[in-house]
Amino acid sequence: MTQSGTHSGTASATTSAALALEPVLATIEKTQAAAVERLAEFLRIPSISTDPAFDADTTRCAEWAAAQLRELGFRAEVVKTIGHPMVLAHHDGPSGQRSGSPRILYYGHYDVQPADPLELWTSPAFEPAIVDGHSYRGKPGKRIVARGAVDDKGQVMTFIEAFRAWHATHGTLPCAVTVMLEGEEESGSKSFEPFLKSHKEKLAADVCVVSDTGMWDIETPAITTRLRGLVYVEVTLHGPSLDLHSGMYGGTLVNPINALAAIVGKLHDADRRVQLKGFYDNVEPLPDAIRAQWAGLAFDEMEFLGEAGVKHPYGEKGTTTMERMWSRPTCDCNGIYGGYTGKGAKTVIPAHATVKLSCRLVANQDPAKVHASIEAFFKDHCPPGCRIEMVSHGMGPAISVPTDSVWLRAAAKALKATFGKEAALIGTGGSIPAVGLMQRELGIDSLLVGFGLDDDHVHSPNEKFELWCYRNGIEAQARMLAEFAATPRA
Amino acid sequence: MTQSGTHSGTASATTSAALALEPVLATIEKTQAAAVERLAEFLRIPSISTDPAFDADTTRCAEWAAAQLRELGFRAEVVKTIGHPMVLAHHDGPSGQRSGSPRILYYGHYDVQPADPLELWTSPAFEPAIVDGHSYRGKPGKRIVARGAVDDKGQVMTFIEAFRAWHATHGTLPCAVTVMLEGEEESGSKSFEPFLKSHKEKLAADVCVVSDTGMWDIETPAITTRLRGLVYVEVTLHGPSLDLHSGMYGGTLVNPINALAAIVGKLHDADRRVQLKGFYDNVEPLPDAIRAQWAGLAFDEMEFLGEAGVKHPYGEKGTTTMERMWSRPTCDCNGIYGGYTGKGAKTVIPAHATVKLSCRLVANQDPAKVHASIEAFFKDHCPPGCRIEMVSHGMGPAISVPTDSVWLRAAAKALKATFGKEAALIGTGGSIPAVGLMQRELGIDSLLVGFGLDDDHVHSPNEKFELWCYRNGIEAQARMLAEFAATPRA
Repeated sequence: MTQSGTHSGTASATTSAALALEPVLATIEKTQAAAVERLAEFLRIPSISTDPAFDADTTRCAEWAAAQLRELGFRAEVVKTIGHPMVLAHHDGPSGQRSGSPRILYYGHYDVQPADPLELWTSPAFEPAIVDGHSYRGKPGKRIVARGAVDDKGQVMTFIEAFRAWHATHGTLPCAVTVMLEGEEESGSKSFEPFLKSHKEKLAADVCVVSDTGMWDIETPAITTRLRGLVYVEVTLHGPSLDLHSGMYGGTLVNPINALAAIVGKLHDADRRVQLKGFYDNVEPLPDAIRAQWAGLAFDEMEFLGEAGVKHPYGEKGTTTMERMWSRPTCDCNGIYGGYTGKGAKTVIPAHATVKLSCRLVANQDPAKVHASIEAFFKDHCPPGCRIEMVSHGMGPAISVPTDSVWLRAAAKALKATFGKEAALIGTGGSIPAVGLMQRELGIDSLLVGFGLDDDHVHSPNEKFELWCYRNGIEAQARMLAEFAATPRA
Repeated sequence: MTQSGTHSGTASATTSAALALEPVLATIEKTQAAAVERLAEFLRIPSISTDPAFDADTTRCAEWAAAQLRELGFRAEVVKTIGHPMVLAHHDGPSGQRSGSPRILYYGHYDVQPADPLELWTSPAFEPAIVDGHSYRGKPGKRIVARGAVDDKGQVMTFIEAFRAWHATHGTLPCAVTVMLEGEEESGSKSFEPFLKSHKEKLAADVCVVSDTGMWDIETPAITTRLRGLVYVEVTLHGPSLDLHSGMYGGTLVNPINALAAIVGKLHDADRRVQLKGFYDNVEPLPDAIRAQWAGLAFDEMEFLGEAGVKHPYGEKGTTTMERMWSRPTCDCNGIYGGYTGKGAKTVIPAHATVKLSCRLVANQDPAKVHASIEAFFKDHCPPGCRIEMVSHGMGPAISVPTDSVWLRAAAKALKATFGKEAALIGTGGSIPAVGLMQRELGIDSLLVGFGLDDDHVHSPNEKFELWCYRNGIEAQARMLAEFAATPRA
């Protein structure tokens, strides 16, 4: 609360004609424990969208989120799609609000990554545990450990809890709000684009707040303005028509594991440059202005790699770790399997082997072209008599959002008021296909304001969210809403 | 029975002073159905030695086999080892048998390979099914489908059933017999060598009959005189200390899957020559004599590959498929895994990736040197900051057995009497480390007489044993025993 005290003037000044912010911040402070318990409830639902075994839980999770929003005066529906349902909710804001007052769209996702490898979790992935965490401004902190803690349920709850505080204090929100929560962000977002096309009017808004990114560090807020895109495929190399005895057949025919590995091994050259045809066409060097800005962030390469237990920087020749992370495309295997993978030995030559492969894309790379180039690469290198089968698990282009909008300025103001520090404008290596699709289909720019940290173990065992980040995120979201309400529409 | 009728003269002539063979063959003919049911009982025990989950079944399987032998007048024990137990059984043969009459050692294994991929079996792997099979000399045949049907339970039962027929007919066997059944043949035979060292006296014998190989075809018996050796290892490449988000870290550090695949891809050059240092040292070209003998076998390369659904011969440049199969060393991946291997997509960079790798060895290759060379290869190609961990799953040298011994002549005579055709002297790509170890530790040569066919799906789904091969195998074993009994010791 020290922050909200210190900086309250900022927001209230711009919203003099509107609802008061101060009591909202007081409510947030009073209701911290309950906010954490509500997040834990959200986290107990194993909404793993990529695994059909969890379909019922995923739908239950959507309904849970919709119920939360109804409690806060939203008209919330769980909309069926070709995949997992979409949560769509509307709040009109204060009755008789000034015309010209904006409508803000909020995007997040309620689905999560699979939890495996389960044995590496210190507590069950879907039984949230509160343990010691980082301190903030010298004050000791706790963290909540669970799959989805920060990606993205914890971040979704920062704005839902901000709405809750506004609703509890004033019985309404300071401006009109639409919430859209996706259930397929971790599994290719197949039904997202059709949903946007069929719900354009309901989704009309001035800007979209996306909370699925990170802060610069626990004390420095950030707004993300560059996102890498993604192409994710699964490639199977088919050889013999059945598994064979390696003694009888070894050396006389193509071994699909050896053959697949050989192709994967050719994906990069000695300089770690991706060898897919046309991969770097139109990929531009980093503008000097951005290079200078990033240099100002005093990024500690060894600390970043150290979080991953890595001591040696490694990657595309002639680039820095920060450039590799935010501005260079990649080609990574995310999974591989073939033959006998149980304990001990089995002398088999398998009928096929499979690799899950994804490319992170940067500006001007066409996902469809990269997708085609991957397929061509595997087919061109496929040994005689073998067959390549490729399945797509989704794709999205790289994104950059405007850095000079009134909405970004409003968000930056709220972040400074919360943290007492200017927000850093950063990039991220991750992909949020939704951002690009909303830009294209709805003509709405996104504002990527998130509260995660680099060491949150996103997609890994023991994923966590610092309760300081959760608390400050809720305050920042409450302040942003006040700033947005006071921002005249373009 | 047509065969035994036609050729009975052969054996009875050489065993005039001994127990009559004719009634034994008659017993075999009368008890076929019961012999198949006993094999099915053996096959219902899932003795998967490589998977600790099946340890109890594996021990139960050893006890089942020992009980069978006790019924036939053997002193049978199930001997504890550092791994799975060994079945050791003795029969002294007819009382007051002529001095100078031999003792024959029989080797087989009661353990089996894992059954996965389970979904590809047309009937459950451990519920033996009798279905239509190949015909023999124009007579329609059936086959028994189950894991272990031919490797090696069905073959072990050919000699146990032959003993049963002798015992049922004469109340004894025509000469002294020792049986040794191993429970770790499919999982590295770790305790086999120590067992031989500690049981030298009990295992003393003139020759060892090993039934774990194949016939030339369903009408042509074979004696295998060349076996490839084996080195089997599991190699893990360790990178980051935990699984990571490919968006946050992709491109900034070593991806263990990409790195492992790149190393595996370097194991062979463009001519499919293995690149392990010193791998081909001392590997000699195939002697012209053997090349000529093999040419006489009229091997149909496309039919052999066709059994595996393969249309393109592939392998070491400048060699024929038969040479690759019997006389050239290999380096095959038998399994690979890393990262996310479930359904759908997960954008993870895993902490490690693992490959199961085995080399088939030929004469003069030292398994220990090859083992060391594999480890050196992976370590030499390991990227900076990563770590290679290698586990051994067993090794054994290549073997060749004398082709001019009295025992081989005796076996060949019995095979001709059974099948009416000369036995082919062949090689096999498979490995039976026991043969080399018995040669070294006990000074006993092996006689590799087996009744499997190339299309038996050994180590694959729907493994089967033709009932014609089972029946003829039992007859051949009964005849061999008569021939051995009539063979004076060297």
